[in-house]
Amino acid sequence: MAAKPGIPKGTRDFSPVEMAKRNYIFNTIRDVYHLYGYEQIETPSMENLSTLMGKYGEEGDKLLFKIQNSGDYFAGITDEELLSRNAAGLASKFCEKGLRYDLTVPFARYVVIHRDKISFPFKRYQIQPVWRADRPQKGRYREFYQCDADVVGSDSLLNEVELVQIMDTVFTRFGIRVSIKINNRKILSGIAEIIGEPKKIVDITVAIDKLDKIGLENVNKELASKGISEESIALLQPILLLEGANLEKLEKLKTVLAGSEMGLNGIEECEYILKMLSGMGIRNEIELNLTLARGLNYYTGAIFEVKAPDVAIGSITGGGRYDNLTGVFGLSGVSGVGISFGADRIFDVLNQLELYPGEAVSGTQLMFVNFGEQETAYCLPLLARIREAGIRAELYPDAAKMKKQMSYANTKNIPYVALVGENEIKEDKIVLKNMVTGEQILTDVVTIISTIQNK
Amino acid sequence: MAAKPGIPKGTRDFSPVEMAKRNYIFNTIRDVYHLYGYEQIETPSMENLSTLMGKYGEEGDKLLFKIQNSGDYFAGITDEELLSRNAAGLASKFCEKGLRYDLTVPFARYVVIHRDKISFPFKRYQIQPVWRADRPQKGRYREFYQCDADVVGSDSLLNEVELVQIMDTVFTRFGIRVSIKINNRKILSGIAEIIGEPKKIVDITVAIDKLDKIGLENVNKELASKGISEESIALLQPILLLEGANLEKLEKLKTVLAGSEMGLNGIEECEYILKMLSGMGIRNEIELNLTLARGLNYYTGAIFEVKAPDVAIGSITGGGRYDNLTGVFGLSGVSGVGISFGADRIFDVLNQLELYPGEAVSGTQLMFVNFGEQETAYCLPLLARIREAGIRAELYPDAAKMKKQMSYANTKNIPYVALVGENEIKEDKIVLKNMVTGEQILTDVVTIISTIQNK
Repeated sequence: MAAKPGIPKGTRDFSPVEMAKRNYIFNTIRDVYHLYGYEQIETPSMENLSTLMGKYGEEGDKLLFKIQNSGDYFAGITDEELLSRNAAGLASKFCEKGLRYDLTVPFARYVVIHRDKISFPFKRYQIQPVWRADRPQKGRYREFYQCDADVVGSDSLLNEVELVQIMDTVFTRFGIRVSIKINNRKILSGIAEIIGEPKKIVDITVAIDKLDKIGLENVNKELASKGISEESIALLQPILLLEGANLEKLEKLKTVLAGSEMGLNGIEECEYILKMLSGMGIRNEIELNLTLARGLNYYTGAIFEVKAPDVAIGSITGGGRYDNLTGVFGLSGVSGVGISFGADRIFDVLNQLELYPGEAVSGTQLMFVNFGEQETAYCLPLLARIREAGIRAELYPDAAKMKKQMSYANTKNIPYVALVGENEIKEDKIVLKNMVTGEQILTDVVTIISTIQNK
Repeated sequence: MAAKPGIPKGTRDFSPVEMAKRNYIFNTIRDVYHLYGYEQIETPSMENLSTLMGKYGEEGDKLLFKIQNSGDYFAGITDEELLSRNAAGLASKFCEKGLRYDLTVPFARYVVIHRDKISFPFKRYQIQPVWRADRPQKGRYREFYQCDADVVGSDSLLNEVELVQIMDTVFTRFGIRVSIKINNRKILSGIAEIIGEPKKIVDITVAIDKLDKIGLENVNKELASKGISEESIALLQPILLLEGANLEKLEKLKTVLAGSEMGLNGIEECEYILKMLSGMGIRNEIELNLTLARGLNYYTGAIFEVKAPDVAIGSITGGGRYDNLTGVFGLSGVSGVGISFGADRIFDVLNQLELYPGEAVSGTQLMFVNFGEQETAYCLPLLARIREAGIRAELYPDAAKMKKQMSYANTKNIPYVALVGENEIKEDKIVLKNMVTGEQILTDVVTIISTIQNK
């Protein structure tokens, strides 16, 4: 007997129940993207390595899954090179292609290739798996889905407003209470400018982020330990002590950043977005959070992050504005703003809070028990009518023991079972059993259809 | 400036319009699978090469995309082996993983791994891409989707009946007229048994298949050229001359195959399936076709194939029954039957016959023209209401020239445009322009919602 087969570490099979839940997540996100006029694209799973390499830093290059060239993959490699065993150096000789690492670089590549056919601003969304040769660990996979939406070719802050609305709507539909955190890269740059420590901006935000946990004194100590001058730390104090509602904070910040044009510009952008949103019926908390610095090397304007306070898990959505998305592929001047929902984490949150709606994860609605040849011949046309009415129905394919058939229906969570034996055929009736209550009624196909449709 | 990037040959980007069409195809197939109680699973894109190798023949092994091991992929390979440059032989040393080649082997692997959690019969469907390092050519890609449904763990022919119903329903929904061809491997084996040429069954079916094109005499010549004896050719004549309706053909065939138990068994199976189907309101032609021999080494019972006579294209769906799906992974006795829709070819057929329903490929339904700050502030809450009603709507994000905004709406095929200027704000009205007829009316948000919803 062959050994029981396995799957590559960091990858997953998805069972029917898991798929139903995942589809619920993807469909919810997709529906909201559509409501806002975003259009779907898909790009190939494999890209040329030349498209991918150098876009995610040195570490990223190592995490790319590379696809061995077909045929004679030794071609073009000298014996000396082979014997050098320089794995990193020779990777792109053995391999011309790699698996998609994220959806952003392929999107940039897409925009460049198809720019003549695209009507800008281009509002696109993309829901596809990505692959990373990361060390697998709890909640981190080597194959996982990203659900990105981006607008490129428009500098309007209305796009930012809309993306916040989208995040708010998606999590409202999921029933997950969230806090949507907003910051702006220009404010961070303004702070760095004011205190004269532009290189230390990451150290500063990391330290500030610990304020709630370790207190002001310890934050200041940490800042000092990172080599930030006493003078700079003094300048940072009003920022550390910022309090009040979002707009109040921004008002106070104007004084602190009065000397930085860029900083004031960031404040203005934040103000615009928050004011626009205030009349939009947003249902979740929006929090200006100056410590939010995700993707700092990448974002140039607004920065977003969503957390679910009811579950101990990292951010479940993030995004921001970036300049020059496509510059690396030779097309400059294309700025954009986007968000990405973390489907795997949202899956965990919905599981933990038991928020999946029953309808979203229900499969077959009605099963006919199989009593044998004659009964089957009678049932099949009934089944056809029931399916014609849009009801998901099946006939157990074998005339197996009743217990086995009922246990199948139970395992599949089928809510109704139809029993048609000799007597029922004579009377032209059907016994309908409600599998939840156990109740049985003698009825007909029309009633069954309306019962299930109105459920 | 960087060189304009490309994508790997044999792969494709999908634009919003193409995605809408593809989703229409996948959703239609998915909906019908659900109606029949099939449940979705997904398996990882990459499988261990040990799972994939040897399952698709020697040629198939070469067509597998192999993923280079992460880190030091030279580890465990001697200098001598490297210098041997034996690409095929060393492939599985450089690579432990490969990309999915079809959905059947991963499904078999899935069943074996999860057998304790599966309630048999297991009706599963799977819609995922597969990858093959084939030479790319028109209509053949290196990454393409398969849409498979299989039932495993049931020998009942009702599964075959149901799969024919599924094919009939799917193509009826698409509006594609098809011919569903049915055969049975046991009939082919019976024929081979009767004429005593079991090894020549492929040659025989290939020759018979040409009957319409080249005539009886030439078919007999071809059979002779393949080394089939005169006596055997004589025995084949009644089969070549079979005529009439499906059940008549089977009746005549009973005489010819009277000496083959297996052959008669195949006839009986066909009869059962056809008789069951006759009362099911099948809307497409079902044709018993004895030359149908696809996947001969694989199928053990029923064989299906679907062709669209209105388009010059190969088969657009196929399938059949197979024994021992999981034997290769150490779990014997699991037989199954399944079908696979060829999404790429169906895409071409729908394009050629222009059968995409407008609704399926429509995106944004309403666009607000952007007249500037003040108008935008007025429009945003209206937009929120409109989206609340489920209408896909957007506001052009920049206060660009009217011409540019209208051209954007045109390119995106948006059917309605809303114009709200200073005067409209004063009157609390909206100008609604029908982009198809050019008609403009002065109206309000409630009317707009009902107009678009009732369209």
